[in-house]
Amino acid sequence: MNNFDFCVGTHILFGKGQVERLPEILSPFGKKVLLTYGGGSIKRMGLYDRVRELLADFEVWELNGIEPNPRIESVYAGEKLCRDNGIDVILAVGGGSVIDCSKAIAAASCSDEDAWELVKDPDKIEKALPLCTVLTLAATGSEMNTGSVITNLKTKEKLGFLNDAMLPKASILDPTYTLTVPADQTAAGAADILSHIMEVYFSRPYAPIPDGISESLMKVVFRYAPIAVREPDNYEAREQLMWASTLALNGLCSTGKGQAWPCHAIEHELSAWYDITHGTGLAILTPRWMRHVLNEGTVDQFVAYAVNVWGIPADADRFAVANRAIDRTEDFFRSIGIPMTLGELNIDDALFPEMAEHAVRFGGLEWSWVPLDKDAVVEILKQCL
Amino acid sequence: MNNFDFCVGTHILFGKGQVERLPEILSPFGKKVLLTYGGGSIKRMGLYDRVRELLADFEVWELNGIEPNPRIESVYAGEKLCRDNGIDVILAVGGGSVIDCSKAIAAASCSDEDAWELVKDPDKIEKALPLCTVLTLAATGSEMNTGSVITNLKTKEKLGFLNDAMLPKASILDPTYTLTVPADQTAAGAADILSHIMEVYFSRPYAPIPDGISESLMKVVFRYAPIAVREPDNYEAREQLMWASTLALNGLCSTGKGQAWPCHAIEHELSAWYDITHGTGLAILTPRWMRHVLNEGTVDQFVAYAVNVWGIPADADRFAVANRAIDRTEDFFRSIGIPMTLGELNIDDALFPEMAEHAVRFGGLEWSWVPLDKDAVVEILKQCL
Repeated sequence: MNNFDFCVGTHILFGKGQVERLPEILSPFGKKVLLTYGGGSIKRMGLYDRVRELLADFEVWELNGIEPNPRIESVYAGEKLCRDNGIDVILAVGGGSVIDCSKAIAAASCSDEDAWELVKDPDKIEKALPLCTVLTLAATGSEMNTGSVITNLKTKEKLGFLNDAMLPKASILDPTYTLTVPADQTAAGAADILSHIMEVYFSRPYAPIPDGISESLMKVVFRYAPIAVREPDNYEAREQLMWASTLALNGLCSTGKGQAWPCHAIEHELSAWYDITHGTGLAILTPRWMRHVLNEGTVDQFVAYAVNVWGIPADADRFAVANRAIDRTEDFFRSIGIPMTLGELNIDDALFPEMAEHAVRFGGLEWSWVPLDKDAVVEILKQCL
Repeated sequence: MNNFDFCVGTHILFGKGQVERLPEILSPFGKKVLLTYGGGSIKRMGLYDRVRELLADFEVWELNGIEPNPRIESVYAGEKLCRDNGIDVILAVGGGSVIDCSKAIAAASCSDEDAWELVKDPDKIEKALPLCTVLTLAATGSEMNTGSVITNLKTKEKLGFLNDAMLPKASILDPTYTLTVPADQTAAGAADILSHIMEVYFSRPYAPIPDGISESLMKVVFRYAPIAVREPDNYEAREQLMWASTLALNGLCSTGKGQAWPCHAIEHELSAWYDITHGTGLAILTPRWMRHVLNEGTVDQFVAYAVNVWGIPADADRFAVANRAIDRTEDFFRSIGIPMTLGELNIDDALFPEMAEHAVRFGGLEWSWVPLDKDAVVEILKQCL
């Protein structure tokens, strides 16, 4: 294993009814709360009303309408609310987009730098407002990590950034709030969870502890995502996906491992240019990326994936076993209803060279498991058409 | 899954040379350090000297000679040093005994209650001095949890207790310091790790995520403990055992599960009366306890253990499969050199009734996976003779 630091002190409150503890978790930070959320789903399910009731003894400001692939303009709007009103703590109620945007707001509100400068150079972040979350989508893992992804449509950039100050103080994970997530978003969320695990699992050095944990989490997602897609109100499936999403990206699966995130780097280009659903882009890219990087140096980890995750017998040629697991992966995404070609999203090859160049320049692809240059990225994208 | 809270913010610094960061992790807490340790092993390996060099800019007091199964008298001695000298932070360098004792010292130093009263009623603990650790034995997991076990030889009691205030702020996990651990202590440590996992794995409700993580960690211990026993200076084996020991008992494996810890409750009686090595007692008890609780209501989890951990085919009668896995467990402990009967430790049945009564009274055994009464505990102990 590589040396590593692991420090993820977010207080997780998991299960039915945990939202009732909101006053208890917010009180230590102060009385002035910025409540952030996206569209109307938290109102339709009654969560908004219950949160407002629970915040009766707090002073509350609101930032709503935070979009999927959250934009820097929403960060500026939230920062202004925090500064103008002396906000003590941010409460994000939503999925990864709302939480990511809130992290950027929390950091920008404590800095003299422009918010977009902090996204581009997060070492400039010195502190952030405390952030608590109520999660409503099992996908990004943002509820228990230090990362955020913000999109700048003017510059066509979607950039991920990390800073310890942005780690949520507490996150309420009640699977009940995901029972109304539509099938397509459930599927895209599952793809996002799997990609977070796979980007690290398929990296050197191989390490028995994180790789074993990753295998067990992948099996859980492969088992329960189809149930959640088919039976949206299946609580057991929803709770498995929710806890898996959090553990997939809180650092546990990468302890002692390197990581380069090639599919994310390429997908961020697709989202930045075409504003597609992040998980959908990842699902389309992942099996094509797998076939591209399968070689003598990587085949053994694919065989481990085939045997330990899919239960494929290792009694055939190693490459045949590996390819069978990759095919199963692609079939799985298709089976849960994800459109598995870029053509189905009306994306053609016009911008592939430009996206590939940007992905290589900002995505660290030269350091990945199998180093990728611009031509390789274009080739992978063409396989997705 | 049951509802659960998960909040384990210990900063883990894992790998070779991480001790060099001691000044960085201690500085935020102050300049007056109580250094706690056990016997001479940290001096023999040069760790003591290096720690003292790294603490050159701090004021340092020392409490040494902390014993295995640490005693309340050591807690009183440490508490007095903290009070007399206005200690800011405790630095524990050692294994679970040193860390457990230091947790009790940290709590007692901030309380008006007698230290033994806090052990018996930890709800009285309101705060504790900050504690950092340098781990030298892969076993108890105390480096990343809120628990401690203290022995009172006068009352023949060995009691575990928990309080969030005792969670270490930072723990340095450098497997190098375990390369000189003798084979018998390595084996006992492995048994301790496995017991922490099994006490929770064999509990209701069964839960795919923690149970899957537990299975992967058990496989790691079964694979690497024999290597570490045979080749003490095998760094890879040591790093696997060290990280497994931490994850086995930081709460991850019990998220959403109940737990009752029957083998620990019974073993604490053995340690309290006979001062035996904790891990050895657990190894002796575990397979006998497994055979006692195997029944129609529990057999399926034993089959899962057989198939997923030992790779035993599930093609025979369920009880036959379960018993094969239990036999493999007992054989494993014997293979790494653990004396697997109480007779080998010169323990007879004279005190079994007294120990059984105390274990049932203080161990919550009526709530365990298969409830145990006094007669059941005596029966399990007799199987260990």
